[in-house]
Amino acid sequence: MSKEKQLALGIDIGGTNTAIGVVDEAGNVLIKKSIETPKHGDAARYVASMAETIRELIHDVKQLNSDINVLGIGIGAPNANYYTGNIEHAPNLSFKGVVPLVNMLKTEFPELSHIALTNDANAAAMGEMIYGGAKGMKDFVMYTLGTGVGSGIIVNGDLVYGFNGFAGECGHTMLVPGGRACGCGINGHLESYCSAGGIKRTAFELLAYYNATDSELANKSFNELTAKDVCIAAQNGDKIALEVFERTGDYLARGMADTIHHTAPEAIFLFGGPTAAGEILFEPIRRNLDKYLLPTFKGTVKIVPSQLKLGDAAIVGASALVWKEAEKN
Amino acid sequence: MSKEKQLALGIDIGGTNTAIGVVDEAGNVLIKKSIETPKHGDAARYVASMAETIRELIHDVKQLNSDINVLGIGIGAPNANYYTGNIEHAPNLSFKGVVPLVNMLKTEFPELSHIALTNDANAAAMGEMIYGGAKGMKDFVMYTLGTGVGSGIIVNGDLVYGFNGFAGECGHTMLVPGGRACGCGINGHLESYCSAGGIKRTAFELLAYYNATDSELANKSFNELTAKDVCIAAQNGDKIALEVFERTGDYLARGMADTIHHTAPEAIFLFGGPTAAGEILFEPIRRNLDKYLLPTFKGTVKIVPSQLKLGDAAIVGASALVWKEAEKN
Repeated sequence: MSKEKQLALGIDIGGTNTAIGVVDEAGNVLIKKSIETPKHGDAARYVASMAETIRELIHDVKQLNSDINVLGIGIGAPNANYYTGNIEHAPNLSFKGVVPLVNMLKTEFPELSHIALTNDANAAAMGEMIYGGAKGMKDFVMYTLGTGVGSGIIVNGDLVYGFNGFAGECGHTMLVPGGRACGCGINGHLESYCSAGGIKRTAFELLAYYNATDSELANKSFNELTAKDVCIAAQNGDKIALEVFERTGDYLARGMADTIHHTAPEAIFLFGGPTAAGEILFEPIRRNLDKYLLPTFKGTVKIVPSQLKLGDAAIVGASALVWKEAEKN
Repeated sequence: MSKEKQLALGIDIGGTNTAIGVVDEAGNVLIKKSIETPKHGDAARYVASMAETIRELIHDVKQLNSDINVLGIGIGAPNANYYTGNIEHAPNLSFKGVVPLVNMLKTEFPELSHIALTNDANAAAMGEMIYGGAKGMKDFVMYTLGTGVGSGIIVNGDLVYGFNGFAGECGHTMLVPGGRACGCGINGHLESYCSAGGIKRTAFELLAYYNATDSELANKSFNELTAKDVCIAAQNGDKIALEVFERTGDYLARGMADTIHHTAPEAIFLFGGPTAAGEILFEPIRRNLDKYLLPTFKGTVKIVPSQLKLGDAAIVGASALVWKEAEKN
């Protein structure tokens, strides 16, 4: 048995920045750096600069403790396909077509046995299982609330990727047939009601409906108001803001019921900015959930906040892929 | 290597009858018998009579070919829990509470290594994978259309049971918020639109809407009309009946899109009486599906009829559990 300390690299590719960190088995980020996600669309140059940063980080971490072993690299990215290791036609990245990121990194780091890629929400779910509140759970779901609503579904202790590698799009299940315009072009999806933007849209609907000139939310334009403003107003007892969270909780409960009727998870974890509202968000979800569930499921599913730290979660989640790959091989 | 012929027993427990058959590895039912599903609620007597029939069948099949090996027993039943091997609080069976069916059969047949139980739709999905159109598929879904709408979800080559053993209730996902009364007590579920009864209900809604006195369907009472009548009328070109299937196809497409966005299957198989309508049902599902799907999924999922024979499917599906259990051990 080696007494080396096992470490994993986690990479979070966002539209603007790419964060790269070295993570230990407990999910602590020991050291991290950030590079720009390029606007130039040149994948080869981007991967070269990524590789350089990775080598610097490995060098730096070995200064702290020479007896370490870097097991692999896990990457969370938009439009990532786990099966192929490619980023495919990502609308928010500058790379056109298909970027074979895993193969490109394998060429740079032939000594690393585990290099894997998945989308951000899947990485968050894996992070929750390896380091967070889902330790020991074999069936659970992660909803990530942000610009969109992402999800990662764990069945039998592993991520559901599906036939084409893109399973787990709970944000694009139908919540209100013929309802709000969703960014994907289809009306009525959960994401258009429960993302950060969806929360703002509910606030504007309610201001209009109640003609609520006295609400804290009535003094900001549509482009100024944020979900965070709604959260703060709700914490101040603003009636409109509280009703926004009441409705958001009910919307999420209805969407979660459909997820529960599909895969029967032990828990659904919520991650992302809007979860800062705490019980103002969680209480109405839990209170409304049972009315949408078959008797078999009532009261059986925990609805809980993610235990990943907001700042490091994307890196930590991505790094979790490495431990899972190591377990498989 | 033994040259014995491997066989499995399949048992289908229905509200009225229990069908028991001996099935070979190709999915042929070699011999079968039926006993009454008791109204007396006495599980011990029922299992004793089931065991007697199983012994008769094994005896009879050995008369045909002495060189056989019965591997195990697979059972499909309502409210069946795969994990515990129990039938739990089944509203359509006379047994109260929890019946530990697998343990009771293990006591009767200690020599059989594989005795497993699941619900009917899961058994159908397993049958499709082992013997039917899903051979070689690792990610697919089965929808069964009948009195209700059941479903079985296969991920990574195995059934999704979920945390409590009851996953795969696509019939009880929300299709029309605040819509039709569903048998489960929650309004608007897919089942209330797409089961055999749902098809009849759509026919009555359309008769009323169009005041369609000249439709073939206008001469039968609500209690007389069946989904089969609607199917025959559609095949005769009856406009109301054709619109019923147009709408049913659209409803199913919407429900299936939610399923696809969860688990990204390669195919969705449809099983049950209403599938006899053939392309009258399948064409509108396929035509409508893409409008509910994210670009990544458009045109990628096959919507196809089950290849299990309607008469024997329940026995054959249940028997498929045995081969799967044998593979696991």
